[in-house]
Amino acid sequence: MEVKAYMARLGQQARAASRQMARANTGAKNSALLAIADAIQSSRDALMAANKTDLENGRNNGLEAALLDRLELTPARIDNMIEGLHQVAALPDPVGEITDMKYRPSGIQVGKMRVPLGVIGIIYESRPNVTVEAASLCLKSGNATILRGGSEAINSNQAIARCISQGMEQAGLPAAAVQVLEITDRAAVGELITLPEYVDVIVPRGGKGLIERISKDARVPVIKHLDGICHVYIDAEADPEKAINIAVNAKTHRYGVCNAMETLLVHETVADLILPKLAERYAEHAVELRGCEQTRRILPDCTAATEDDWHTEYLAPILAIRVVADLDAAIDHINTYSSQHTDTIVTENYTLARRFLTEVDSSSVMVNASTRFADGFEYGLGAEIGISTDKIHARGPVGLDGLTSQKYVVLGDGQIRV
Amino acid sequence: MEVKAYMARLGQQARAASRQMARANTGAKNSALLAIADAIQSSRDALMAANKTDLENGRNNGLEAALLDRLELTPARIDNMIEGLHQVAALPDPVGEITDMKYRPSGIQVGKMRVPLGVIGIIYESRPNVTVEAASLCLKSGNATILRGGSEAINSNQAIARCISQGMEQAGLPAAAVQVLEITDRAAVGELITLPEYVDVIVPRGGKGLIERISKDARVPVIKHLDGICHVYIDAEADPEKAINIAVNAKTHRYGVCNAMETLLVHETVADLILPKLAERYAEHAVELRGCEQTRRILPDCTAATEDDWHTEYLAPILAIRVVADLDAAIDHINTYSSQHTDTIVTENYTLARRFLTEVDSSSVMVNASTRFADGFEYGLGAEIGISTDKIHARGPVGLDGLTSQKYVVLGDGQIRV
Repeated sequence: MEVKAYMARLGQQARAASRQMARANTGAKNSALLAIADAIQSSRDALMAANKTDLENGRNNGLEAALLDRLELTPARIDNMIEGLHQVAALPDPVGEITDMKYRPSGIQVGKMRVPLGVIGIIYESRPNVTVEAASLCLKSGNATILRGGSEAINSNQAIARCISQGMEQAGLPAAAVQVLEITDRAAVGELITLPEYVDVIVPRGGKGLIERISKDARVPVIKHLDGICHVYIDAEADPEKAINIAVNAKTHRYGVCNAMETLLVHETVADLILPKLAERYAEHAVELRGCEQTRRILPDCTAATEDDWHTEYLAPILAIRVVADLDAAIDHINTYSSQHTDTIVTENYTLARRFLTEVDSSSVMVNASTRFADGFEYGLGAEIGISTDKIHARGPVGLDGLTSQKYVVLGDGQIRV
Repeated sequence: MEVKAYMARLGQQARAASRQMARANTGAKNSALLAIADAIQSSRDALMAANKTDLENGRNNGLEAALLDRLELTPARIDNMIEGLHQVAALPDPVGEITDMKYRPSGIQVGKMRVPLGVIGIIYESRPNVTVEAASLCLKSGNATILRGGSEAINSNQAIARCISQGMEQAGLPAAAVQVLEITDRAAVGELITLPEYVDVIVPRGGKGLIERISKDARVPVIKHLDGICHVYIDAEADPEKAINIAVNAKTHRYGVCNAMETLLVHETVADLILPKLAERYAEHAVELRGCEQTRRILPDCTAATEDDWHTEYLAPILAIRVVADLDAAIDHINTYSSQHTDTIVTENYTLARRFLTEVDSSSVMVNASTRFADGFEYGLGAEIGISTDKIHARGPVGLDGLTSQKYVVLGDGQIRV
């Protein structure tokens, strides 16, 4: 009951602050971002001390090494938070942009104005720098936000929250526009995602388990990103050099990221030529290969892929390979097994490229480019709150525009309906 | 259990058909729309006979007169269905439109392509013409659809469904792309809104009770339109003639529609001048007035408005009136009581107009125009599946674009991430 009351109070404060934020001008929002950067700069010692407490608690609680690493605030990571705030301040303000203004036969002029969504709830895990990243994007897009970080980062997040409040107040904006939960009670998440009167959208950032749990229980729209089972299809008319470069880059550039390739599809007429060369390159990176029968005839050392492999996001140096008869088989495989994140065709054939772009139903479809490009910065969004695998509202990398909506604006001169 | 299996089968068929529809070219979709129009034209007798059965059943079950009226298929209404199909065929195809294609420093070219949402579930009440309207918009936007009409219209809807199937098959498109439920079991709705694997979005069309129920239980995103509590604010610097024309039109042009004005706000310095003139005009239309204290000092015959009145969508010749001190009070009232549908300011003051457009958080904000213009046709969308009072995905009148999403398209020349 206490958690319920606490969350309702946060929600009310956020809703009230969101009205002020929607009206805040670009200058005030940018001043706040820079003031937060300054507050972080002058609180480096306090941030490191708070983070040290979290790290010690984590070690005592047996947190695994990877999580401890993500939890740690190094001087370089604090530099990055400050740099990120400056970058967001430099981005164009999406709010108030008016587009498509047109006269109608009735004499009214109709267009659309970009507006904030209102209150955004962010639920994330150990990395404390997400607190600053998410807060800065919500602030710039004129939204109020309620942030719920991992319990293991509570001291770091509270220290960051103090810097944010300080910056907001200095710029004359309501501190309640960015609220970081002070409690680690799990029930708080349950409340946050079931308060449609105070929260307009939830953005969960974390593992698939967290996101599935939240989507299942939410009574508020969720912008979500489940897994990234991305494909590269090497067509019969692929340029072999481009094909090999892209297939190697998409798998080995980074393993633990959602836009890494997990399954490679190869047209049967070029499999004999391409696969042995590729296997050599993957061997240099110690990538384990799991292939279909035809793949294994060409690469005898490759282990047998099972049905499960086509469904798996490895996030590791493992790659599933399947030889396919034609573009239709490739598209069928992708539309069946892909997580609709990012899929690429390598081909010089205009018609097949055009078909792939049209018929593959994923948030990013590519021709002759590595899946690793599916990213807000690479796409020119300037920043990214996440990558959506939903179709509704925002699809693919979500930048500032994804945190806004559009309302209709009608300008008249006394017009009435007849 | 049978309903569960039946709905799952419909869902699977819809999902499979949606893949074919996403690839269907504009010509095929338009041929289908025109073939459906022809099928309806040549099935007029069958449609009237089926509708007669529904009307008789309705009368025997004591259906109220207003519902019987909405249920009836007159020759004129059949003409309208046919005309509507021709209009949708004439609209530009939203699918495949590529926008914002730009080169990035990495050498890739990034843009967005408009794509269908997939499978759309439509849940509606008695009017059988909604079957054709909704099917045609989903078809044109490349989606598959599952339609669940009111049980009182089952025979009419099945007769229309046969015309739709006939038209689809004639154009070589899958008949399963438009499926009208053959059962009237209420459990079917419960299934339809909890099948995220087969259904991408639900559009409920009906009363507030239906929509609230669906939103509460849905496990699929819902594009919803709750109530339309629309405001006209007459500012101190309003042109009196425009103010009176707009206030009369917004209330009296049609009463039972969501974009009718329900509350009038008047600046205190012009209330003495405007309200008596307005009261005369409303008296001609027998509109009942309910006012705040200040209103009642000017219009002694007006009954007293209670807090409830500010919250009420009358959909009737009743109007609540409040005198306000300034623009801030008007905006406060609107942001508190408005259903965020459509709100208008009447003013000649540039700065106040600009503030109203920015600060009122509704799906349509207007200056010097009747709220009655909030409509897909008036806005030039060509058609309208409904008006959304949501902020996520679609806001305001929803046309073909609202039934689509956008995916990213990346064109490269062998680029890899470095």
